[in-house]
Parts: sequence; C-alpha cells; structure tokens
Amino acid sequence: MKAPIEFYFDFSSPYGYLASNRIEALAAKHGRAVDWHPVLLGPAFKKMGMPIMVTIPLKGDYSLRDFPRSARFHGVPYNQPDPFPVSTLAAARVFYWLKETDERKAIALAKALYKAYFVDGANISEAEHVVRIAQSLGCDAGEARAALEDQRIKDKTKAEVEASLAKGVFGSPYIVVDGEPFWGMDRLDQVERWLQGPF
Amino acid sequence: MKAPIEFYFDFSSPYGYLASNRIEALAAKHGRAVDWHPVLLGPAFKKMGMPIMVTIPLKGDYSLRDFPRSARFHGVPYNQPDPFPVSTLAAARVFYWLKETDERKAIALAKALYKAYFVDGANISEAEHVVRIAQSLGCDAGEARAALEDQRIKDKTKAEVEASLAKGVFGSPYIVVDGEPFWGMDRLDQVERWLQGPF
Repeated sequence: MKAPIEFYFDFSSPYGYLASNRIEALAAKHGRAVDWHPVLLGPAFKKMGMPIMVTIPLKGDYSLRDFPRSARFHGVPYNQPDPFPVSTLAAARVFYWLKETDERKAIALAKALYKAYFVDGANISEAEHVVRIAQSLGCDAGEARAALEDQRIKDKTKAEVEASLAKGVFGSPYIVVDGEPFWGMDRLDQVERWLQGPF
Repeated sequence: MKAPIEFYFDFSSPYGYLASNRIEALAAKHGRAVDWHPVLLGPAFKKMGMPIMVTIPLKGDYSLRDFPRSARFHGVPYNQPDPFPVSTLAAARVFYWLKETDERKAIALAKALYKAYFVDGANISEAEHVVRIAQSLGCDAGEARAALEDQRIKDKTKAEVEASLAKGVFGSPYIVVDGEPFWGMDRLDQVERWLQGPF
C-alpha cells in the first residue's frame, strides 16, 4: 500500500470544504488512503503577515463571488456562512480526540462539520454545535465536551498545527503526495496527475 | 459576434504567461475574440496592502515550486526568470502604442515579451529589450523608443491600469466574460463552462 495522501484543511475554508467532497474518491482511484489533518490558518496567516482574505480590498469581494460559483461548478451545495470565517479550534480538538480511537468516525465528523457550516449555517466556532454534531454520529456528548477541555487534547491539537506550519502548510486545502505539496482546490488536477507519477 | 473575452495580465506574471498560451484557442472554440490588457500589478498590490508573492513566508517558496510544475502540467516551456518579478511598465507602454495601429501585432508582441522573459531569460524591464523584441516583429526601433517617451502613451498606459483597478482587477491573469470575473490560470475551466452559458 502506498503512503496516504496528506490532506490539510481548515474547517472554515470554503475551498477546503470543496476539496473534502472530492479527495477520497480521487485517492481511492489511485489506491491511496487519505490522512485528514484539520489545521488553524490563523497562525499561518500571522506568520505570512497576511490579513483574512475576505477583508482584502478587491480580492475579498471577488472571493465571495468565487466561493459559491466554484461550488456550483463542482456540483457541491454551498451557502455562504455568516459569520465568516470563524475560529475552528473546537472543531479541530474534537476531531483529533475522535481520531485517536476511531479515525473513520473522525472523518465522518469532519464532513459533518463542513456540511453544518457551509450548508446548514451552523456556527461551528461554538462548542455546543460541535458537540451536537459529534453526538449525531454516536459520540457521547459528555465525553466530547470533556475532550474540549482536556489539556492533552489541547496540546495535541496545538502540536498538529505547529507540525503543519513546520511542513509549510499555509493555506487550505493543502495536499501532500509523497512529499510534493499542492495548494488549493484548483490543484486537484495536478494531484491526480502526480498520483500517476511525478511530472 | 459576441463580446470579446477581456484578458488582463502582467508581463511579469507566471500564471498570466501560462494563460496567454491557452486563452486564444479557448476563446476561438466558443466564437470569441480576446481583448488583451496588460496591467501593472504593483498598484493593485499596494491597494490590497499585499507584498510581492515570492517574498511571503511559506507561500513564496511554494510559488517558486508551483510555477515550473504548473508549466510542465500545461505543457508550456518555462525557466524561472531572475530577477523576478520585474517592472513591466516599458513592456506595457510599447504594447499599448502598437495596439493603437495594429492590434494583431500588439498581441504577437505580448507573446514575444512573455517568451523572452519566461523562456529566454531576457530582463524585459529594460527598455532596450522591449525595443529589440518589437523590432523583431517588424516595428521600427526608433519609433518604439520614441513611444516609450511619448506622454500620450504614458498617459494611455496609466489610464488602462487605473481602469483595470476600477474594474476590480487585482491579479494576473484576470479574465472577464460578459461581466463575470475569473482570477487565475486555474479558473480557465470555469471560463470555458461560462462560455457555454452562466452557471
């Protein structure tokens, strides 16, 4: 079995959400698994000296037009969330907690969180929404709540974000195939070609 | 005849260069012409408060890897220029001078300038390189040199850049189809779909 595709994303990233709808089928087609890594783009943007995209003059307005159009182009349901973007710390913590014991369920949680935010309009920065979504997948609400306050889970999430920065992850989605990095939903075509062999 | 596709680009932009190799065939396939508009990204980046991409931590290193890889992916010759990026004011001025009398030759000049910079390594920020390239297309070198100093051409170029900013052009390539804006080489797939009808 070849190494899994490393899939880095922020739960508040529209293009990460779009990619999350495609990455598994793409990987499976080439006999690969996907290792899901939610990250927090806040620290990366700080390191780059970059503001949040939608607040940038010209580019911000364009982005708000491109998000839903790209979703339509790829046939993925999308409703622009408000507030946007939001902190995805709680979402990332519950994901990493769940990944320790049940990776498959953690991936299901990631998809459910994305759908909650980008389709149903739930503010996933609020811990109770994250807990409710975990519960809908069969998790115990009390355990999920406890995980959010667990120092070990906090440290683990922080370590994941730091490791992603050390690896050069600066945007979402950011996909690594056998060491080769690809940034953006619009690099899935190159990811697919790379899976057939470096070019 | 439907309205031409508006193609905005900076002569120092790798993705603008890649798009310049594809835009005409794409347009022709859908019965459209292309209106070429070189712009200067400096003023746009200033308005956005953005630094030059390759100087941004993390993203800059990635970009230098993505430029040649994207060129290989699209089958376009590419040699990373040095210095990079460069001022493209002289290139834009000679383009707009030529466009006044011979649009077809101005487009040939644009392609020749891109090739000179991204394949042959000529520093097209230097007026003499621009004049030489215009000359190779049959222009009179003295006239090209005079155009570079002509206040009317300077004003025309400035007006083009200001008009592009007023239109929201903040990157390269930036393509407008019937009022719908698309930013990036990696939006040519959406441009193509849009040419078949808004989605």
